[in-house]
Amino acid sequence: MFELHPQLQSDTAFIADWALSRVLLMDDARFPWLILVPRRESLQELHDLTGKDGELLVKEVMRASRSLKSLVRADKINVGALGNLVPQLHVHVVARKLDDVAWPHPIWGCGTPVPYENSVRDVLIEGLRDKL
Amino acid sequence: MFELHPQLQSDTAFIADWALSRVLLMDDARFPWLILVPRRESLQELHDLTGKDGELLVKEVMRASRSLKSLVRADKINVGALGNLVPQLHVHVVARKLDDVAWPHPIWGCGTPVPYENSVRDVLIEGLRDKL
Repeated sequence: MFELHPQLQSDTAFIADWALSRVLLMDDARFPWLILVPRRESLQELHDLTGKDGELLVKEVMRASRSLKSLVRADKINVGALGNLVPQLHVHVVARKLDDVAWPHPIWGCGTPVPYENSVRDVLIEGLRDKL
Repeated sequence: MFELHPQLQSDTAFIADWALSRVLLMDDARFPWLILVPRRESLQELHDLTGKDGELLVKEVMRASRSLKSLVRADKINVGALGNLVPQLHVHVVARKLDDVAWPHPIWGCGTPVPYENSVRDVLIEGLRDKL
């Protein structure tokens, strides 16, 4: 039984369920930031995935990365699976711009998230559902 | 023609060439830290890989992650493909411990690398060639 970690639940908005992953939007208006969570029980490390699920995950990460980059005209995509704070396996796919507040540093641990205004978030979620 | 970026060349030691990736040891004694560089020309983003190479890469990342974790008895593996500073596509596979100097924060951008002593590095490289 897959259950989303409460911290991920409270930090994100739901976009879609793909073949393997739940796709979430991080509620941080500073960076267009997706999180992919493989919908399997008790995963912590990438290497906990089966070979087949590993192939699915990389396909979904590449899809999210390519679509997000073109959708928000990003300069670079950062991909990371850390899990030091939230143990449930999840992969960050973050659109970076040369003028964002953290560039060229990683976004993890950079300042405090700035929640979207509700109307902006709703429009973004619509666009992501349509385009990803 | 694959050519390793000069910055990666100078920051790392060579471990092995796998089916897709060149496997390197980051010269930073603070963290057991591998870098996998797909041996293909002109890649910058994960989604620049072909589907087939994507499958190979995730397999090699999972292999590096699993082996490194058990070899150094890490508490967590961090995986990341950033490329904000060095544009050539490369994937970090970093062994983290609850008492390392950066925990629970990411290692990227944390302080200054501490190069290995030559004899320590040589022994570690031998072990990694044997065990990965």
